[in-house]
Formats: sequence, C-alpha cells, structure tokens
Amino acid sequence: MISPFSPLRKGLVMCVSGPSGVGKGTVISAVLSRKTAVAHSISITTRSPRPGEQEGVSYYFRSKAEFEQMLAQGDILEHDFYCDHYYGTPRQPLIEKVSQGIDVLMDITVPGSMTVMKNYPEAITLFLLPPSFSELERRLRKRGTECETTVQKRLQKAWEEINMAHHFKYVVVNDHLEQTVDRILAVVEAEHCRYVRQSGIESIVLSK
Amino acid sequence: MISPFSPLRKGLVMCVSGPSGVGKGTVISAVLSRKTAVAHSISITTRSPRPGEQEGVSYYFRSKAEFEQMLAQGDILEHDFYCDHYYGTPRQPLIEKVSQGIDVLMDITVPGSMTVMKNYPEAITLFLLPPSFSELERRLRKRGTECETTVQKRLQKAWEEINMAHHFKYVVVNDHLEQTVDRILAVVEAEHCRYVRQSGIESIVLSK
Repeated sequence: MISPFSPLRKGLVMCVSGPSGVGKGTVISAVLSRKTAVAHSISITTRSPRPGEQEGVSYYFRSKAEFEQMLAQGDILEHDFYCDHYYGTPRQPLIEKVSQGIDVLMDITVPGSMTVMKNYPEAITLFLLPPSFSELERRLRKRGTECETTVQKRLQKAWEEINMAHHFKYVVVNDHLEQTVDRILAVVEAEHCRYVRQSGIESIVLSK
Repeated sequence: MISPFSPLRKGLVMCVSGPSGVGKGTVISAVLSRKTAVAHSISITTRSPRPGEQEGVSYYFRSKAEFEQMLAQGDILEHDFYCDHYYGTPRQPLIEKVSQGIDVLMDITVPGSMTVMKNYPEAITLFLLPPSFSELERRLRKRGTECETTVQKRLQKAWEEINMAHHFKYVVVNDHLEQTVDRILAVVEAEHCRYVRQSGIESIVLSK
C-alpha cells in the first residue's frame, strides 16, 4: 500500500470522536479490518490489567509515578483522570507508527481530540454524528443496562458534544456502517494526497 | 448517491491540471465512467464547430462579441486566447450543476487553475504528476506526430508547469490509471465530508 514515493509517505494520525452511542468502536474496528496499513492507537493507563488484558495490546500499563513523569515530559498527547486512574495517549508509539507509514486511528473523547489538535496539529479530526438525536437516544436505551438518570445524563452530554462538531475538520453521519468506513478511508487517502503532506514531490519527479 | 442531508450536499468543482502528456483526458474520462454524479465542465469557444461537434456537448459555441460581453460581466471563470479564438469556462452551467448536487471536474491548464482559485475559491485544485520526467518525455515522444523543436518546447513547458505543483491543494502521481481514479474519487468524497461544506449539520441532527 506504500506509494512509489514511500520516503514521503508518512502515516497519518486521525482522531475519531463522537457522542456516546454513536458507534465509534464498531466503526474503528470495521476500518481496521478493511485496511492493513491502519492501526489503532493504544492508550496508557495506571489501572491494573484485568484478566485477559495484555501489555501493549489492550493498554500500556504503567504506575502513577511513571505516568506523571511522562506527563511532565510532554510524552502524553492527551489524558483523562477517571475513577482514580489516569488514561492517556503516549506520543512515542504514535511517532514510530507514522514514521513506518502506518496510519493511526484514535478512539478519543471530544475534549481529548481538542487537546490533540493543540499538541499534534498534523492530526486529522473527524466527528461521527448519529443520523438523528432520537436515533442516538434509541441506541443508548437499547443497551438497557442503565437507569433513567444515567441515560438522561448521557443524553445531556451527547447534546453538548454534538454541539462541538464544528471544531472538527471532517464530519460523517454514521447511518450505514460500510458507507461510514468508505468515507473514513476516503478521508485518509485524500489527506495523503494533499500537497502539504508530499512537499517537494515535484523535485523527485523532475530528477527521475 | 445524494446523502440523507441532500439540502446541504452541493456539488464540488475540481480543477484537474498537469503537464501535457500526463494523461489528464484519460483520467477524467475514467472518473466520469465510474461515477454518475460527476460531470465534465463544458467550455465556451468562439471558434466554429468542427464536423460532429455539438452545441452544449463538445463546447458552447458563441460569437466573439458575446464572449467579450460575458467576460466583461464576470460570467467567465477563466479563459485563454489561442489561434485567434477565445476558450473559457462559463460560470452559469457550473453553478447550476453544483446546486443540483453534481460534482464538476474541469480539465484545465495550470494558469487556468490559478485563475479559478481566485474567481471561485471553493474549487478544489488537483495536480497530476507523471511518475518521472523521463516517463513524461517518453509519453510525449510516443505520439510521434511532432518535430524535435516542438517536443523540446513541450518538455520545457512541462518542466515549468511541474514546478507549479505546490500551488495546488492535492497532488496525485498518475502511475496506474485505476489508482489515480480511486484517489481522485477519494478526494471528492473527503471534501464532501469537510465540516465547512456541511456547516450547520449538527443542528439538523439535533432537531430530528
């Protein structure tokens, strides 16, 4: 999949965000299963591994002290603190993947995407919208695991998040999974075709 | 092919440029044969129709006076004067097509693209590069219809044009026709996914 100008073809980083219930996880898995040169970004966490979770596959597991040191050194692109544990995106594995020409998709919260925009401006940001707010509500209720108060809280948060869509470069309505995957892959391919990502390519052509 | 948010889905205008011999015509025909909601922009000319040429298909044929009046009124997006005749891109048919949700590809010279960028800033510009300059030379010589002086002139012009690639938003190396078509269609799809082209879409989602 690497172009004949492979030295110029660095991987891309794409932040995929959207409200809870929009189907981010399903969409990202479907993209990864369609394209081999795309990887999922792996987060760091300070919580303990659960049964079956593997280091470097599910998460990178680190101590709180290690995480805080990385944070202080700018080695974490964005992070969150939740139920007494840190969760964050480490910069180094991402840099390694993109330098190997691998595109990296990040399943990330809306505020997480905003932070990545600041800390890694080459990142592409894409927001997944539900076909309608009532459809999102239906999807959230279908889970059936949460009480009404929790559902109402999630809906309120989803409303606020959807109102952040204009901060993202691309917006895709997740109505039909395959069409959503096609569109995300089109965005990745098109971003590779931007001149700014191939700067100097004309000199290579002229010299050959 | 129109999205469920069709009122928002206007067509796009894409200028496709590149040096003589790069295969613009072949690429554009291949794109049109793959996708029905894409049209070719039709130029206006003041020269007489040749046998078989049809009004509104090959060209719009107009008198010099009519052309100059359109030019004065800003109804021509870009134009050229060649062998005592005008050739230009009329604004009106383009506006009509994009308002119907049809994407319009323009087979256009490098300076023509630069003028469109000024007169129609929403246009996307894409530059086709040959795999190498020596391959371009081979393609130009293969035509075999031109004397050495003409070939040298065309090569000199191609060199200058390739050095203008950095003015274009997208650059695609035309090595394998089908890959080039895939990339152009990816650019079209991705541009439709940009938030700026769907501004306000989140309000529609929230209201449904």
